[in-house]
Amino acid sequence: MDFRQTLPATALALILGAQTATAQDLRADALDFFAALPSTTPAVSDNPITDDKIALGKALFFDPRMSASGVFSCNSCHNLATGGDDNLETSIGHGWQKGPRNAPTVLNAVFNEAQFWDGRAADLAEQAKGPVQAGVEMANTPENVVATLNSMPQYQDWFKASFPEEADPVSFDNFAKAIEAYEATLLTPAPFDAWLNGDDNAMTEQQVAGLETFLDAGCVSCHNGINLGGHSYYPFGLIEKPGADVLPEGDKGRFVVTETVDDEYVFRAAPLRNIAVTAPYFHSGKVWDLRVAVEIMASSQLGAELTGEEVGDIVAFLGALTGDVPDVVYPILPAETAATPRPSGEIMVE
Amino acid sequence: MDFRQTLPATALALILGAQTATAQDLRADALDFFAALPSTTPAVSDNPITDDKIALGKALFFDPRMSASGVFSCNSCHNLATGGDDNLETSIGHGWQKGPRNAPTVLNAVFNEAQFWDGRAADLAEQAKGPVQAGVEMANTPENVVATLNSMPQYQDWFKASFPEEADPVSFDNFAKAIEAYEATLLTPAPFDAWLNGDDNAMTEQQVAGLETFLDAGCVSCHNGINLGGHSYYPFGLIEKPGADVLPEGDKGRFVVTETVDDEYVFRAAPLRNIAVTAPYFHSGKVWDLRVAVEIMASSQLGAELTGEEVGDIVAFLGALTGDVPDVVYPILPAETAATPRPSGEIMVE
Repeated sequence: MDFRQTLPATALALILGAQTATAQDLRADALDFFAALPSTTPAVSDNPITDDKIALGKALFFDPRMSASGVFSCNSCHNLATGGDDNLETSIGHGWQKGPRNAPTVLNAVFNEAQFWDGRAADLAEQAKGPVQAGVEMANTPENVVATLNSMPQYQDWFKASFPEEADPVSFDNFAKAIEAYEATLLTPAPFDAWLNGDDNAMTEQQVAGLETFLDAGCVSCHNGINLGGHSYYPFGLIEKPGADVLPEGDKGRFVVTETVDDEYVFRAAPLRNIAVTAPYFHSGKVWDLRVAVEIMASSQLGAELTGEEVGDIVAFLGALTGDVPDVVYPILPAETAATPRPSGEIMVE
Repeated sequence: MDFRQTLPATALALILGAQTATAQDLRADALDFFAALPSTTPAVSDNPITDDKIALGKALFFDPRMSASGVFSCNSCHNLATGGDDNLETSIGHGWQKGPRNAPTVLNAVFNEAQFWDGRAADLAEQAKGPVQAGVEMANTPENVVATLNSMPQYQDWFKASFPEEADPVSFDNFAKAIEAYEATLLTPAPFDAWLNGDDNAMTEQQVAGLETFLDAGCVSCHNGINLGGHSYYPFGLIEKPGADVLPEGDKGRFVVTETVDDEYVFRAAPLRNIAVTAPYFHSGKVWDLRVAVEIMASSQLGAELTGEEVGDIVAFLGALTGDVPDVVYPILPAETAATPRPSGEIMVE
């Protein structure tokens, strides 16, 4: 029986008013910590975004010839079809080598304060240069990338259109800038954004309950901002260090970047948008179940023991962060020419 | 000076009339051997094509979780961005193993009489089952593919919608049929089709000259039909066997399928649509330059020595076979669940 049928109209109005007030209070609290995605492409530092540059960046993002072997593109490990990552523990790259850390999603990455698990790249343009050159990933060189691009007249034209005032537009820097421009368009508005924007019906009751727990339990102290994470660094195991199965001892995180003892086992707080579709979890990629990941975070970072219901609510809330990936028309890439460097799958020993 | 300005109107009409007649004669000759692509998706045997099935097939075609490692999808080696193939000599697959033969394009493949270089699969559905199971390609098993699909409720729904009358729609057979349905949509109308359909201006003068040479020199005797090849088998080296650099001795072609001595070094005549964008060439993938490929074909298959101009004309004509790939909106794939089999990059020794 619907309780509203048994109540006088004034009582009903009071109750509904109270519910609305509560929703508004919760939204006000949430807006202190989070922000909805914007409806337009954000500006990035020192790289004006144009339609030409976005189109070029899309082609480069999907072009496997940017790798030495001709096998891997950016999209191989940051696959837009599967949440912007590769759903592997750690990526498989050149020569079937395994990368050291789980590939983070490219979706909404423009809003991260810095890139990579240890924040070693200041922005997406700097990030884009990393995997291309990493021996275990794409194993290419800036010189070979530029030679490959210059061998295809259509790429030359696209770079000219994207960097019209430059005398020498086909460069490794501009390659990275074009990819950054494209990646800045990869925003995924989610039910949580609609809720933040004022639509009470955008999240289920359980998702709203999960948001409350997320705030009350303290998850929000690291996972806040527009990406619910992605902008500051914390020791993994702040309260209680998880086992080596989840936190391998060989990977000291941000310590390698700062060489500061305080940064041992320090990692960037993971951005949580689309987390429900980007298993496995953590820099080690060792945890496949989002419930388990939430439990590990609660004990290791907060020293909290959450009830099964609370964990379930948080997982439900995290589901409200799964957004709509923009429609991407798969690009048609320029054809190679006689001048295009040949792909090589050989593994170089350095 | 335009010669037409110096001629009386009647003489001009006669000359233009003669030109038109010549173009019509050439078109009539060409239509004896070739056919333009249809404007609709062709029917395939025992597999009614529906929109649901096409959408499912597209998802499967792009899903790297159809491989044991989670690294390779159909699109990895038959990349719609680069002419429907991978632009490698031979593909790199599971465990960084090299495949034995150059990956043929998936574009227009529905019109090939049989699939693979040796024609060992009767149709695209049968073909689709091959690479998924090949140890050097995707290294998966039918059981693991079905378990993977069944672990994701959205795939279950899509299979139900695609095979509505079947009690057990999620099967390896239906996986292959959905991929076949999708691939049947991958038709690329080209300038040559427009020309066959009556547009004299669709090909350049050199392309028309190349078509004439293609007919006169005898290329057409193997490369005919809607795909200019792809439907019958010929010994590579009919007149003069090319060197082992181009025709490796270890690969005896269709002999392995028929076990008939006559089929030693016999391969399917390559379909030539989009050949200009699908280097390198031949089953061995050893030739990167289309001019060189044409010269090798002339000497090995026809015993003909073409002039440089004739080769150039044929290459120009082959350029008129580069078509428009249909717009493909990159699919968003179902997310894994706890029941999804984990990817494994391990190399199994059989």
